[in-house]
Amino acid sequence: MASNAFGKAFKITTWGESHGKAIGVVIDGCPAGLEITVDEINAALARRAPGKNPYTSPRKEADLADILSGVFAGKTTGAPICVAIFNKDADSSKYDQVADLLRPGHANYTYLEKYGIFDHRGGGRASARETACRVAAGAIAQKFLEYQGIALTAYIVQIGRIEAVIEEQNFELLRTAIYQSPLFCPDAQTTAAMTALIEKTVHAGDSLGGIVEFMALSVPAGLGDPVYGKLEANLAHAMLSLPAAKGFEIGAGFRSAAMLGSEHNDLFELGAQGVQTQTNHAGGTLGGISTGMPIVGRVAFKPTSSIMQPQKTLTTSGEEATLQLPAGSRHDPCVAIRAVPVVEAMLALVLADAILLNRCAKL
Amino acid sequence: MASNAFGKAFKITTWGESHGKAIGVVIDGCPAGLEITVDEINAALARRAPGKNPYTSPRKEADLADILSGVFAGKTTGAPICVAIFNKDADSSKYDQVADLLRPGHANYTYLEKYGIFDHRGGGRASARETACRVAAGAIAQKFLEYQGIALTAYIVQIGRIEAVIEEQNFELLRTAIYQSPLFCPDAQTTAAMTALIEKTVHAGDSLGGIVEFMALSVPAGLGDPVYGKLEANLAHAMLSLPAAKGFEIGAGFRSAAMLGSEHNDLFELGAQGVQTQTNHAGGTLGGISTGMPIVGRVAFKPTSSIMQPQKTLTTSGEEATLQLPAGSRHDPCVAIRAVPVVEAMLALVLADAILLNRCAKL
Amino acid sequence: MASNAFGKAFKITTWGESHGKAIGVVIDGCPAGLEITVDEINAALARRAPGKNPYTSPRKEADLADILSGVFAGKTTGAPICVAIFNKDADSSKYDQVADLLRPGHANYTYLEKYGIFDHRGGGRASARETACRVAAGAIAQKFLEYQGIALTAYIVQIGRIEAVIEEQNFELLRTAIYQSPLFCPDAQTTAAMTALIEKTVHAGDSLGGIVEFMALSVPAGLGDPVYGKLEANLAHAMLSLPAAKGFEIGAGFRSAAMLGSEHNDLFELGAQGVQTQTNHAGGTLGGISTGMPIVGRVAFKPTSSIMQPQKTLTTSGEEATLQLPAGSRHDPCVAIRAVPVVEAMLALVLADAILLNRCAKL
Amino acid sequence: MASNAFGKAFKITTWGESHGKAIGVVIDGCPAGLEITVDEINAALARRAPGKNPYTSPRKEADLADILSGVFAGKTTGAPICVAIFNKDADSSKYDQVADLLRPGHANYTYLEKYGIFDHRGGGRASARETACRVAAGAIAQKFLEYQGIALTAYIVQIGRIEAVIEEQNFELLRTAIYQSPLFCPDAQTTAAMTALIEKTVHAGDSLGGIVEFMALSVPAGLGDPVYGKLEANLAHAMLSLPAAKGFEIGAGFRSAAMLGSEHNDLFELGAQGVQTQTNHAGGTLGGISTGMPIVGRVAFKPTSSIMQPQKTLTTSGEEATLQLPAGSRHDPCVAIRAVPVVEAMLALVLADAILLNRCAKL
Repeated sequence: MASNAFGKAFKITTWGESHGKAIGVVIDGCPAGLEITVDEINAALARRAPGKNPYTSPRKEADLADILSGVFAGKTTGAPICVAIFNKDADSSKYDQVADLLRPGHANYTYLEKYGIFDHRGGGRASARETACRVAAGAIAQKFLEYQGIALTAYIVQIGRIEAVIEEQNFELLRTAIYQSPLFCPDAQTTAAMTALIEKTVHAGDSLGGIVEFMALSVPAGLGDPVYGKLEANLAHAMLSLPAAKGFEIGAGFRSAAMLGSEHNDLFELGAQGVQTQTNHAGGTLGGISTGMPIVGRVAFKPTSSIMQPQKTLTTSGEEATLQLPAGSRHDPCVAIRAVPVVEAMLALVLADAILLNRCAKL
Repeated sequence: MASNAFGKAFKITTWGESHGKAIGVVIDGCPAGLEITVDEINAALARRAPGKNPYTSPRKEADLADILSGVFAGKTTGAPICVAIFNKDADSSKYDQVADLLRPGHANYTYLEKYGIFDHRGGGRASARETACRVAAGAIAQKFLEYQGIALTAYIVQIGRIEAVIEEQNFELLRTAIYQSPLFCPDAQTTAAMTALIEKTVHAGDSLGGIVEFMALSVPAGLGDPVYGKLEANLAHAMLSLPAAKGFEIGAGFRSAAMLGSEHNDLFELGAQGVQTQTNHAGGTLGGISTGMPIVGRVAFKPTSSIMQPQKTLTTSGEEATLQLPAGSRHDPCVAIRAVPVVEAMLALVLADAILLNRCAKL
Repeated sequence: MASNAFGKAFKITTWGESHGKAIGVVIDGCPAGLEITVDEINAALARRAPGKNPYTSPRKEADLADILSGVFAGKTTGAPICVAIFNKDADSSKYDQVADLLRPGHANYTYLEKYGIFDHRGGGRASARETACRVAAGAIAQKFLEYQGIALTAYIVQIGRIEAVIEEQNFELLRTAIYQSPLFCPDAQTTAAMTALIEKTVHAGDSLGGIVEFMALSVPAGLGDPVYGKLEANLAHAMLSLPAAKGFEIGAGFRSAAMLGSEHNDLFELGAQGVQTQTNHAGGTLGGISTGMPIVGRVAFKPTSSIMQPQKTLTTSGEEATLQLPAGSRHDPCVAIRAVPVVEAMLALVLADAILLNRCAKL
Repeated sequence: MASNAFGKAFKITTWGESHGKAIGVVIDGCPAGLEITVDEINAALARRAPGKNPYTSPRKEADLADILSGVFAGKTTGAPICVAIFNKDADSSKYDQVADLLRPGHANYTYLEKYGIFDHRGGGRASARETACRVAAGAIAQKFLEYQGIALTAYIVQIGRIEAVIEEQNFELLRTAIYQSPLFCPDAQTTAAMTALIEKTVHAGDSLGGIVEFMALSVPAGLGDPVYGKLEANLAHAMLSLPAAKGFEIGAGFRSAAMLGSEHNDLFELGAQGVQTQTNHAGGTLGGISTGMPIVGRVAFKPTSSIMQPQKTLTTSGEEATLQLPAGSRHDPCVAIRAVPVVEAMLALVLADAILLNRCAKL
């Protein structure tokens, strides 16, 4: 059943396999008149790109977007925008030797159960490569959000057992610090510690999980729709649709469970911009609708499923076997790092959708 | 914008305000031929009902469902099923005195910002009362799941800082233990400790958060759709659409972040039923598609926003004020308890939808 | 599969069987702040009601709407509006004797093939009674359209072989003439001729088809979305979803096929209101988007399937049989007449949806 | 608002402008395991291609499809199928001189009103070129239908005032006759008369309308969903979404209006295949659900809006002007001809969707 689309008004449909001819996205519903260039999309893709830091998988070429439709004379026209990324470096022969093994943590078993067929090359449709399309679409959504005065970001707050302490309060400085870290972690000391952990883990042929925090500022009050269209419900859906995502929380999240009502409730007060709350345990929404306070939440990622250690498993025909990935296989030691710009993209897509949907709230 | 519907194939639309004439749900897409009685729906509603335990709000009457359409001669016909619950005990006059105050943790501020109008009586559409409709629909979904051989449940695993240790492995015994606890917590000792904590907190005019765990057994492999229709994405959406929900996780969830790949990966092996995994850190899905292992996850709820302590706030016109709820106001000291059957209902709805959608996967 | 909803932004879901407890509609997405009363809905229902003229079926009671949710202090709140009509006069025993016969022109055969079960009482879900819910929802949509300055109407232009010649150009006078005719035909002479034809046909135990024309004035340019959201595509969908509808056309419609391009093209000129076209063969849209000219089209209805003449048929178990409806059975001799307010309602629903959707077209 | 998608389960999203880099379609929901080759898609595109007959516009190159995703080892995998057609012959300079004129019958006025921007090159998104994507997707849908034993076709039954008399009853012979006619008209004599009319009209710088009939055989009973998912409602939507379509009818269609119930009702009888009807005025559905009889209907197309005669119009800034297309402009004298394979494609898409949706009807 059709399941490759996300969003209602600002709607994306992604397509393409990791090692197929191309991957791409169709954005249906982007308002007309938005200035966008292929360079802006490529800049977003570059942030997600593997060459960026030594701890993401060594696919060599840069991902280059091609805007196939929907933009005329530098502006969106209201027509669907198709952005394609043609695959160049897609030698899947390495994977042939493990093609008939069930791979722990991977989706080949479940795809085979569901469809009776699996495009095993590079993980096919289940590959994290699909997220490049989200980043391309997110770049356009983010352009739309900038036009609305909304700023957003995402960053690593945990890798393995190392938690970052983020004290920077200034948004621009925070963003600068994020981009300066090859791990997208705005704290330099933590970055160093995490780097050491990653190196040790890679050496052991193992992998790490992590947590990404996201934040959106200057979001107007009123975004999000009651009941099943709550902003946090759409964000949870968006984030849990990411490969390797295992958890989502908004505001105080799971910590809320241990709080008292008198602690958790954010009290209203008058600020320079009007109504605000003294604290933001809610994470920027009440009843699923934005309050005007920062939208803040976190996404947990499991450790990369591809590891270099041998693992007991079964063949697709049910015989016992050992999976040993070929030396030189490419994969990230910690998928959470590469997920940072993708989380930001999903946040942008959810908010762009919410802005359009909110235009129908009143007479 | 339309946001009161959930699901694609087994689709529900809920309607009604807490203190309006009635609340209800339309189920569009329930397969024909399913035997269902109003008693089965009422039994589910009774589990969620306030009289069940002393720690949920004292609305006096039992919720009684009325099946207005879609069932003929004891069976569903394929036509939309409308179930209504008429409100009887809806004296909202108590709330009149706080109607012009922004209520911390509540949605009246955001509804007013969004719509310019708010049905303040009992929280209107933002009230947890809407979840009774989910339970009614969930009872029908659950009947469909039973027909498919799927069993599911939910229970309290944390209230405040008290975590339950659940050692019961037998599903039927677990379910019995859950129902025996007025807090839906299958561990008797923990139930006692939680009860004491609740009493102490109520006495202090405060409220508590909590965590609900859900579980589905005998789910066939292959449910859930790739990319944006992942089972965990739909579950996250479902759960974060619940009032007061702040977090969602599946399998090892946030703990995954601190695990190594070699720890987290669930190794495949042959069991009595065929392929299974030795562990279930994944929580029953890979790539968003069910593996056949139990679907397990958790939902975090913030403490009830309505507390009896005075809170500083603003009036709707922006003046400083103090909110003091009238003595005898009704609200749960811990919304997580009442959420248990609702979480179970949402799990049932997501799975019923997934079963239908999966019928389109192959030729 | 869920199929009881229509519209994207102004979305309705109808429920209920002809002879069940109630029928109703949930409107999800009506903007907040719209003034609406139950009397306005009842007035619309009264136009569709059977007592209105002697040629529609003699269900005795007036349909009375009950607004169960979504309206507070006389205004919509943005919450879903549930309108229910409780059935009072639903003696279905008359139909019991023909319950096991396949009824020519009716849906009991196809429902049985599809669902394996059929609520035969009064046609169940396939009954034209469902259209009362469309009229109730349409009344609210129409209120929204009035607020936008849009006026609309519908009327009979053909019954059997009698075609009406409609010369009235003034919209208000046209509307008055329509309401003065028990057949909703604005031409008095034609009404008389049609009345005679209907009487003759009823006497012969037979039934008549007809054509309804619809018109919307002061529709702003820009409504409707390209490609699959074309205004005429949505209208066609809306109209062919009506029971007994067999055809739809917009503007010159089927006559277009015999026209030359130089005849059919509507030339642009400047009018008092700005750009307009000299003629309106297009019927008010170009490329699926409104031009600002009147939206005009027609819907063809087959003759009522229930006739008093005996008809050869089969039993549900495949044996030859003769269907003879019991004397005194109630049904319209010409469903097109009763369809008039329903066509108008569907027009209103499509336009209300288009207005909301159009808010997302530009930055 | 997102409007470039069609279908629920077998869902297509088209993208691309007439004179952009490429046009294409993403099919989301095609079942896994279907054998499909690019040659099959190209064969379908060739039928729609301009070189096929002298009366369609002289775009020189053949449209060649590229399957970018979703097919592995010759079979669909359940992943979204992206088919792109790269534009080669897209010199839009000829249109530059008329870029600032409102073109009668065209969509540039309405697109400008809606979006404030228009990609005028070759009609941009409003061009009939978009329908090539429908044909590509339709070829895959048709492959799926063949697998289900369903056969379908479409053909010209009217051009200008010339109506075809189609007497061929054998489906295979009918299909052969259609393909032998450069006008897709299965009657040779009519083809000759139509050809003469087209030549005369082209000579006069004018254009012609036409009517296309479609037919599907061996459609099982039970397809289509009640109320708003009626098979004829979806077909009407599909057909009226085609450029230049002005009308749709199923079965006896508009002729139904002049029939008596006793004439129109199709009586049930037992045939070799089980229950059938003696006649098929219904056109293969009752209550929106297929009966097992042939699905038959017609679509009316207006004459091509581009004509070589000078036409009075306005500039985009509202000044009076005369539109004279440049000599050698390419456009079909009768769009209905080229629409034939597109109507067939839309029929295939609606039926493929209905087959999948119907899998959810029963337990």
